[in-house]
Amino acid sequence: MQSNKTGVWVIGALGSLGTTIVAGTRGIARGLSASTGLLTERPELAPLELPALQDLVFGGHDVRRGDLVTAAHDIHRQNGSLGYQLLQELESDLSNISREIRPGTAQGGGDAIEGLAEVPAAHASSRELVESLVRDLEEFRTRHSLARLIVVNLSSTEPPTDWTDAYRDRDALEAALDSTPPGTLRPGLLYTYAAFRAGAAYLNFTPSNSSLCPATESLAAEQQVPFMGNDGKTGETLVKSALAPMFKYRGLTVDSWMGYNLLGNRDGEVLAREENRQSKVESKDSVLSSILGYPLHSHVGIDYVPSLEDRKVAWDFIHFRGFLDYRMSMQFTWHGCDSILAAPVVLDLVRFADVALKRNESGPLLHLASFFKSPVHCEEHDLHAQFHRLTDYLSDSSHGSSSDPKAKH
Amino acid sequence: MQSNKTGVWVIGALGSLGTTIVAGTRGIARGLSASTGLLTERPELAPLELPALQDLVFGGHDVRRGDLVTAAHDIHRQNGSLGYQLLQELESDLSNISREIRPGTAQGGGDAIEGLAEVPAAHASSRELVESLVRDLEEFRTRHSLARLIVVNLSSTEPPTDWTDAYRDRDALEAALDSTPPGTLRPGLLYTYAAFRAGAAYLNFTPSNSSLCPATESLAAEQQVPFMGNDGKTGETLVKSALAPMFKYRGLTVDSWMGYNLLGNRDGEVLAREENRQSKVESKDSVLSSILGYPLHSHVGIDYVPSLEDRKVAWDFIHFRGFLDYRMSMQFTWHGCDSILAAPVVLDLVRFADVALKRNESGPLLHLASFFKSPVHCEEHDLHAQFHRLTDYLSDSSHGSSSDPKAKH
Amino acid sequence: MQSNKTGVWVIGALGSLGTTIVAGTRGIARGLSASTGLLTERPELAPLELPALQDLVFGGHDVRRGDLVTAAHDIHRQNGSLGYQLLQELESDLSNISREIRPGTAQGGGDAIEGLAEVPAAHASSRELVESLVRDLEEFRTRHSLARLIVVNLSSTEPPTDWTDAYRDRDALEAALDSTPPGTLRPGLLYTYAAFRAGAAYLNFTPSNSSLCPATESLAAEQQVPFMGNDGKTGETLVKSALAPMFKYRGLTVDSWMGYNLLGNRDGEVLAREENRQSKVESKDSVLSSILGYPLHSHVGIDYVPSLEDRKVAWDFIHFRGFLDYRMSMQFTWHGCDSILAAPVVLDLVRFADVALKRNESGPLLHLASFFKSPVHCEEHDLHAQFHRLTDYLSDSSHGSSSDPKAKH
Amino acid sequence: MQSNKTGVWVIGALGSLGTTIVAGTRGIARGLSASTGLLTERPELAPLELPALQDLVFGGHDVRRGDLVTAAHDIHRQNGSLGYQLLQELESDLSNISREIRPGTAQGGGDAIEGLAEVPAAHASSRELVESLVRDLEEFRTRHSLARLIVVNLSSTEPPTDWTDAYRDRDALEAALDSTPPGTLRPGLLYTYAAFRAGAAYLNFTPSNSSLCPATESLAAEQQVPFMGNDGKTGETLVKSALAPMFKYRGLTVDSWMGYNLLGNRDGEVLAREENRQSKVESKDSVLSSILGYPLHSHVGIDYVPSLEDRKVAWDFIHFRGFLDYRMSMQFTWHGCDSILAAPVVLDLVRFADVALKRNESGPLLHLASFFKSPVHCEEHDLHAQFHRLTDYLSDSSHGSSSDPKAKH
Repeated sequence: MQSNKTGVWVIGALGSLGTTIVAGTRGIARGLSASTGLLTERPELAPLELPALQDLVFGGHDVRRGDLVTAAHDIHRQNGSLGYQLLQELESDLSNISREIRPGTAQGGGDAIEGLAEVPAAHASSRELVESLVRDLEEFRTRHSLARLIVVNLSSTEPPTDWTDAYRDRDALEAALDSTPPGTLRPGLLYTYAAFRAGAAYLNFTPSNSSLCPATESLAAEQQVPFMGNDGKTGETLVKSALAPMFKYRGLTVDSWMGYNLLGNRDGEVLAREENRQSKVESKDSVLSSILGYPLHSHVGIDYVPSLEDRKVAWDFIHFRGFLDYRMSMQFTWHGCDSILAAPVVLDLVRFADVALKRNESGPLLHLASFFKSPVHCEEHDLHAQFHRLTDYLSDSSHGSSSDPKAKH
Repeated sequence: MQSNKTGVWVIGALGSLGTTIVAGTRGIARGLSASTGLLTERPELAPLELPALQDLVFGGHDVRRGDLVTAAHDIHRQNGSLGYQLLQELESDLSNISREIRPGTAQGGGDAIEGLAEVPAAHASSRELVESLVRDLEEFRTRHSLARLIVVNLSSTEPPTDWTDAYRDRDALEAALDSTPPGTLRPGLLYTYAAFRAGAAYLNFTPSNSSLCPATESLAAEQQVPFMGNDGKTGETLVKSALAPMFKYRGLTVDSWMGYNLLGNRDGEVLAREENRQSKVESKDSVLSSILGYPLHSHVGIDYVPSLEDRKVAWDFIHFRGFLDYRMSMQFTWHGCDSILAAPVVLDLVRFADVALKRNESGPLLHLASFFKSPVHCEEHDLHAQFHRLTDYLSDSSHGSSSDPKAKH
Repeated sequence: MQSNKTGVWVIGALGSLGTTIVAGTRGIARGLSASTGLLTERPELAPLELPALQDLVFGGHDVRRGDLVTAAHDIHRQNGSLGYQLLQELESDLSNISREIRPGTAQGGGDAIEGLAEVPAAHASSRELVESLVRDLEEFRTRHSLARLIVVNLSSTEPPTDWTDAYRDRDALEAALDSTPPGTLRPGLLYTYAAFRAGAAYLNFTPSNSSLCPATESLAAEQQVPFMGNDGKTGETLVKSALAPMFKYRGLTVDSWMGYNLLGNRDGEVLAREENRQSKVESKDSVLSSILGYPLHSHVGIDYVPSLEDRKVAWDFIHFRGFLDYRMSMQFTWHGCDSILAAPVVLDLVRFADVALKRNESGPLLHLASFFKSPVHCEEHDLHAQFHRLTDYLSDSSHGSSSDPKAKH
Repeated sequence: MQSNKTGVWVIGALGSLGTTIVAGTRGIARGLSASTGLLTERPELAPLELPALQDLVFGGHDVRRGDLVTAAHDIHRQNGSLGYQLLQELESDLSNISREIRPGTAQGGGDAIEGLAEVPAAHASSRELVESLVRDLEEFRTRHSLARLIVVNLSSTEPPTDWTDAYRDRDALEAALDSTPPGTLRPGLLYTYAAFRAGAAYLNFTPSNSSLCPATESLAAEQQVPFMGNDGKTGETLVKSALAPMFKYRGLTVDSWMGYNLLGNRDGEVLAREENRQSKVESKDSVLSSILGYPLHSHVGIDYVPSLEDRKVAWDFIHFRGFLDYRMSMQFTWHGCDSILAAPVVLDLVRFADVALKRNESGPLLHLASFFKSPVHCEEHDLHAQFHRLTDYLSDSSHGSSSDPKAKH
């Protein structure tokens, strides 16, 4: 007999973000922490029948060895964002969930990601590798009698992938899986393929463009599963997309918008590599001219500052012209903590994806665009317009009946 | 025979803002300056039949002596926001318009405003005073054969007015005009009364609450004229109303939002007085809790920094809590120039009000809420939601017919 | 037989700063924490014969009930500045030292300070009260066979005291002690008097001006003990005094220097009172014109922001003129933690004061001016010039012999 | 008969800085502008017998065509830092001085600098080229009967020069001049050589390391002329060198100091090239670890933001650790105008160099170290310590007699 449990499979489960999600969910579920930051805890969303936090079952892949207890204490020491007493009370939860983490794959992820890998590369072909990933998911589903399964990609940013045939075409992809050694195809592609094969919803929280591509999307269509991505919008870009419309509303011409991101965690370390940074910069940079409607002098800097640990400091300088072309400026500094900002967004996404699965919605979940820096199949970057899509969906939902699922594409 | 000209009567015509509006309008009309900052110059608004900038005829009241040429050169020296060469080319325009400026009234405006007055107090009663204001407007209309007339209040901020009967009731107001000496009623009340008596549309760009009150609004209803206010939203509050929704969308709890405004012009000097500042602070302070939906620790400081002249520097510090109640912060600094930011907003408001007059719309123009810090008869403070009201109005307008004016209240 | 121990008696021992000093000293002494922030741990100061941290014995007065274990855990929860594991290891140290804390006096400290008091007012006259304070100090000295005793005032800021005869004249003070009820004289005066009576060195780390005044200084002279104050320089004022000389070196004219301090701890709560804030503002405000050599438009704002807890955020805006009187600006934001910044300064002061006691130096310790916002008997506010006084003293010390103590006034 | 005039020969005379220096000097000399920003106008320096501003005669080299009148009006339009009315009154001065500008050389300066050149390359060999530069200087001296001559290098930043034999050895340099075609040696080397050959004092206000090198310094020694460099310290680095000592005084450990410079003028355009930026970054980067005494994670970013014109915005983020290794931060934003900040520094340097020439001082003028980012032959980077060298020199000077010149090396 099937339970009402929803599986949440995290790629990169031992990272700061993965650890914070698991610890936070368990802390809230046990009544030890407040649910601050979770949109889905608002009373007006009750009619949606979102999954309860205690019904989320966690597992995941990671390329590093380790366990959630150690990872969580590291976070405590670095940022204090996970409290010592909370971790003491969650120790057995974290130990148990650690046992649900399987070795992932870094092969083909580029030098930075491969350099992080501590698990051995154990497969003879791409096919063998990807089938082992599928098996991990299916065993997880069976082991916990899961009603629904959602895969979230939180792994480090890959360098941009040039879409060869294997990414553009389902048959070519299958052929490549059969004929190539591990390391030929990006991990992001393999994880997504495995998720869709296992009938899971898929959320790409990284900028890696190997993940949602024509080949995997055609598989999703065949499997009738929903997905969304790319790249969670949680910090500087979030502010940009909230603020840029203001300049448009007032007819102020933005000449230059210079943004500098300082970060210190593993994300920062990987993004210190030029090729990996490229994926992130592209994802962040398209927002402004899209909202403003004209080209401008913009810059997105990302610098690694180890002492910041998981904290992030971003400074943006905006140089604009008003009446009579007089120049003025605005600047902001954002002092955030990456995992703390991203964790509730991931949980909200997971819960909305769960609703989509229940309703048999498939394809890109465009009502979730406000949560992504580069929402797939969506040209809208204005945060407010994006958010209205969600409120429209929610208000349709509360009136609509579950026997009439709304197709989203 | 009536022309197609629209009169723009400015209360506080010799101030930085009044001077910048006049110089800028003439500069753009003469092709000497770009129209940056004017929403109403966008090509998609052409169907609205907005008045051409060259069809705006300026006049106004001021309590100081002086002329626009001198005032404009002062601005040049202080900020450079009006270029020396531009002023040379506009010299005769500015001289001519200076002749349309009549003595205003400061009596009853509080110590700070009365201290600015250089024109003698020449009337025996409130009635005599207000009738002279009406006469100024009517003569202006006749002298230039104006098709429509719009009064804009740009005068210094009055202390908050306790609404006595004269403000709450039309008959009580008429009685007070007849029975009291000048100085009993606030200038803001008298100017608004005069505007409505002269059949003008009225825009209250200051926070002074004596202006739009039940007594004057009932006169506007009788005269079938439109109006809007209070307090132009051009700087720190504009940013607040663009940014605060972001925290709501992400479930981030704002604990404290501290704002500090440094300004150096006459506005700053007047607002250095506790009683006048109070009007401004109240106007700015309601925005946040209205958008966020909960009370928070907030502060609006206004300090006079003479060296800034017409420039304004505002610093806001936002302290918020995310997942697991972890505290983070954001800060922004706004470096604006008050008159440069406000002038195009006033011009946009004037042109939209002119459209309303043409269409016989009356009452509060709620579609203009995005331009005000404390929009009357409007609880919405979210900049984006406010702006959508304008775009809805504009898109209705382009389809609707002028024989079917939309009642706004 | 006398030990080589130095007593450190803290007025306000249970406050954030007092607690941080005790926990930090014990943590470092036990090898659990690094000695970051302590100037006196530099190897080049070894010849000075500074007291070892393990030889410092703590006690103190406080007007609140409570103990250091609880206070330290409150700090952990609020800022994380005292680590949970550290506190577990220090539990018995903190318990033991808590037993050395005696009831202080709030009477006469103004409404804010009196409002904090939880210990009963138990004395019939000022004389009886002050003698009980002296007794606390003498018993502490005897109980631990202390070689030397230093009293540090870390209590909340009093309102400014108008120096009546009791503050200006030793005999008048003694008479007032005999003839007045408790609450007539400021606590700061009584604590200082008690310290000098007990032969202790005295450090006034608060701005309260009742502490070091002619009446108490004449007692210090009689007792041949050293002292220094007022008001520890640890945050925004420290930055000001480092930065202002730069403008002087470059001939840049500072027109306006506006400073805003946001703080959230008990200090912030007390300083939210206008009368208490006044002491702080005066202490902070004299620095700039003293360094720059001309009057300028300056402002020191202090606002209470409860969510900040012991953290402090200060924003300073500096508007200056350069060549051809062109205006430019600089701004800085300081994100500090008050107790963390102040604790090592207090420890350094204590250790330097101990050296002074050993050398029989007495009177104001002018070489410690760099640590105070309003150094007594010292007109120099330039941080660099102040610090050179310390390095000069230290280099004299390393050459000089202890049989030739340097008189400091 | 020789006059008492001092020649000021500016390499890069038509740049923003060169133009601002000339216009400002003439404006102050004619009583049209204040002398803000000039240290040398302080009354206490009167005994030094500094040259009067009206006795400075300007000429220079530039690789672009143009004249000072046009250049000055460009600056007016871009920043307003040179007032329109001032320029009208200085028109004939600027025209006259423009006639003293001769074609410079860009050959060998790297792609960016060569790309700016508008004057033809007209010489067959390095020797012929450099002799024409010497001739320009000597003719200038003769034409105006100058008593003393000072050459200031304000040209664009060259890429770092690898010191080959020609830079390390006087004879090798002479041989290279004879045997190589133009473009073999850096312009900075040739200008310096020419200055020393002409008996001029030389100030290298750029970071270009080709200028002051063993080969040119040995020529200076032979000619008995003084010099100083490199790279004027006027903005972000100035602030760094004022602020970094504060962290040292307090035992605060700076983990990271990230600096970002946004600039928009020709300097910005040249520095947008990686190879040229390198010279600047090296010059700016050594300051911190030198002052603090330990290595830290630091970064100096320079980005070109055309809309800023001659304005410069720099943001620095400083991450530091205090007591118990608790992390705190500070950030500052500097809004300057490069030419306005640099012009008075250049004038002060010129006047101090003139005093040195009068006193027959030669070699590096170490008392001028506070004005340079990378002072040659000087390890001291602390602004305050550097400035004390100047005040020591000045106070020696005021006591010393002119018959006893102080040798500076």
